[in-house]
Amino acid sequence: MAISDRRRKSKGANVDYVAGNGLIDRRALLHRGVLMAGAMGAGSAGSMVGAAAEPLADGPWSLEVGSAIPPYQVPSRFEANVVRTVDNPDNEPRNSRARTPHHLLKGVITPNGLHFTICHCGVPDIDPDQHRLVIHGLVKRPLVFTLDALQRYPMVSRIGFIECGGNSAPLFSNEPIQANVQALHGLTSCAEWTGVMLSTLLEETGIDPKAKWMIAEGADAPHLSRSVPVAKALDDAMVALYQNGERIQPGQGYPMRLWLPGYEGNMNVKFLRRIKLTEDPAMSYYESRIYTQILPSGKSYRFYFLQEVKSFISTPSPGIKLKEPGYYEISGVAYSGTGRIAKVMVSADGGQSWAQAALQEPILPKAFTRFRMPWRWDGGPAILQSRAWDEGGNAQPTRAQFVAERGQTTKPPSVLGFPSQHFNAITSWQVVRGGEIKHVYA
Amino acid sequence: MAISDRRRKSKGANVDYVAGNGLIDRRALLHRGVLMAGAMGAGSAGSMVGAAAEPLADGPWSLEVGSAIPPYQVPSRFEANVVRTVDNPDNEPRNSRARTPHHLLKGVITPNGLHFTICHCGVPDIDPDQHRLVIHGLVKRPLVFTLDALQRYPMVSRIGFIECGGNSAPLFSNEPIQANVQALHGLTSCAEWTGVMLSTLLEETGIDPKAKWMIAEGADAPHLSRSVPVAKALDDAMVALYQNGERIQPGQGYPMRLWLPGYEGNMNVKFLRRIKLTEDPAMSYYESRIYTQILPSGKSYRFYFLQEVKSFISTPSPGIKLKEPGYYEISGVAYSGTGRIAKVMVSADGGQSWAQAALQEPILPKAFTRFRMPWRWDGGPAILQSRAWDEGGNAQPTRAQFVAERGQTTKPPSVLGFPSQHFNAITSWQVVRGGEIKHVYA
Repeated sequence: MAISDRRRKSKGANVDYVAGNGLIDRRALLHRGVLMAGAMGAGSAGSMVGAAAEPLADGPWSLEVGSAIPPYQVPSRFEANVVRTVDNPDNEPRNSRARTPHHLLKGVITPNGLHFTICHCGVPDIDPDQHRLVIHGLVKRPLVFTLDALQRYPMVSRIGFIECGGNSAPLFSNEPIQANVQALHGLTSCAEWTGVMLSTLLEETGIDPKAKWMIAEGADAPHLSRSVPVAKALDDAMVALYQNGERIQPGQGYPMRLWLPGYEGNMNVKFLRRIKLTEDPAMSYYESRIYTQILPSGKSYRFYFLQEVKSFISTPSPGIKLKEPGYYEISGVAYSGTGRIAKVMVSADGGQSWAQAALQEPILPKAFTRFRMPWRWDGGPAILQSRAWDEGGNAQPTRAQFVAERGQTTKPPSVLGFPSQHFNAITSWQVVRGGEIKHVYA
Repeated sequence: MAISDRRRKSKGANVDYVAGNGLIDRRALLHRGVLMAGAMGAGSAGSMVGAAAEPLADGPWSLEVGSAIPPYQVPSRFEANVVRTVDNPDNEPRNSRARTPHHLLKGVITPNGLHFTICHCGVPDIDPDQHRLVIHGLVKRPLVFTLDALQRYPMVSRIGFIECGGNSAPLFSNEPIQANVQALHGLTSCAEWTGVMLSTLLEETGIDPKAKWMIAEGADAPHLSRSVPVAKALDDAMVALYQNGERIQPGQGYPMRLWLPGYEGNMNVKFLRRIKLTEDPAMSYYESRIYTQILPSGKSYRFYFLQEVKSFISTPSPGIKLKEPGYYEISGVAYSGTGRIAKVMVSADGGQSWAQAALQEPILPKAFTRFRMPWRWDGGPAILQSRAWDEGGNAQPTRAQFVAERGQTTKPPSVLGFPSQHFNAITSWQVVRGGEIKHVYA
């Protein structure tokens, strides 16, 4: 049965459909609970004696003393699969990535244990008392800051995402790669960052009017460096010291990182030790070779900073089988380096029809926004898509639009292959009979 | 020199004072950075060759390969002191508490590793596949939910605080107890919670109109149970499954807890396994004996659910010595079970004069709000206080107001002593010469 046929058929059901193939305005009763056996429903009200007379089955944890509370808490052992996938577990001499398991998370905060990480030479073990931040170059008063000195400055907190420019690189492949949302989109995360605005520190050093760029450099062995327009430094750049309340974790740049809200991940230089103000960009290895886009025209697309408006559905998604027809909540995250998310549309019929998803408040600029859409799966084929718009009026591109402009590749996707950067087009999940979910191009 | 004298004197300085004893409108230049030695400031601009010609001292972490990225990330070993204090490390047969180190955190999100925990019989090790939630009693259709079934329902995310009713109990002492903010106020934390609204589940069971209360019971060995008005259940109560994105941690009630935004901690029943709708409250041990207030009049103050408007300064605070006179940022958290924080006032002269603190956006209902106030410490005595107002017009009480109404005690403070519940009055930190900070009543 074609999707359009099924759409017409489902209009006869006892719910309000808002788009094809089962998108509904709100769930009807789900009846996921199982009717309770025995006479408990009519039980005597009002006292725990009554309740005690209606015992529930006790697991061993209901009969035994539990364990001691640890000073630093970690997830239950039953959540051992909720971890980042690491692509260089033996720490070979190359880049290492750890990807966020979006299919297993809800909300918009990524817990610190699961925030994505890319390191170019392992995770350094930096002694914060020995670490220094230098601001020099075209400034009036070059300064060296200890961590203690930075702690004395006024701080700002802000919830926002960071995304690797190479996130979603597998979607440049000519054929859809069968992998889950963690493998495809796991190099983006969202946290509450707290630190000192870079503009505050540049007030201290003063700026030579000739300065148009700044070169930020990290203290890890590769000394990764990137050029950032001074205008961004004076806008919303932060020297971040805290992540979700606690000090930044080693993989996020302990003891401090540059945070450039909405700019591609590697520019948010971790282990930040130097900011040098200059007239021109550095044209460093990481910006002229690694993080440069090659367009279909053959030109290179350099200094492409902004992570543009994007969304993906995290559940349902590949690897999470739909066990039976019925109600499901389609849920995912949307974000834009431009500002707030204005709208997310969801389709269950591969883009033939769309309905507007609910956005979870508060909707914050340059931060994950969780969207949700009620869906009744009839057991037949479906193609789930999400498409986001930001407050700047920018629309997430369709795959066809995106590929026409940015290309795709026959090479195996890799952050070192090209094109591999700034993929932000629509992702499509195909639900097949039996409830398996595949990654498709639609 | 008396505080009032110093206030007049400081008015002659080159900053705008907004209240006595050094509260200023914004920092002047801090000059915390150290002037950089050598000719780096005039260095050649524009290339990393130039930057490389101005090397920084390399720690070993700048010369060596770092470590492998772990699947689940934890803080740096240099942050080993940023942990919860546990008061029952040997897991003796009594309550256990783990307190949040507010003096070491920034922002409003408490990372999951450091969220406060109280367990009445240790932390249970619950198998989520075996766990069930039963909703029964005065309902039309008593139901049993597995975790898988709950996962199918529409979810909601919300950032909010949870505070133990006994948080700040040491402040009932007749004399100010010398302890840090973790010991005094560490039983409150704030996180993003995601789960199914309880109203959604009660739509499924239906409600007998006679039901006015519900009794929530946990699956840990004490089967802690509390009575909650059905009106709260239908308002904003949630069966929470996720905490800052990942599944709720064991100390917070894995695999699910009741969340009653703004209500005292123990009512947010952890390891939730039963909700029984009733005509009357259970008058359970935990509500009639443990979590009941004894007022100076001798009457007991039962069913006192709301955590009222409150604030405390987290830095500076006891144990964090001010090393020298000069600029400091006074920072802390404010929150109210009624709704949003409307205003926080700060005093540096023990309440003689007050200035309005900056509130970090977004200001969310029933959530921590971070406040900040610039302060120039002149090296003399100071008494730092914060006072919050909520959008309902409620003011955090002074200590004098609070003690007159609720009493204080000569007994050692304890959650089992009384009075010990719902302390929300102003906290005072006294800065003495040399920069040490003491807890005082002022």
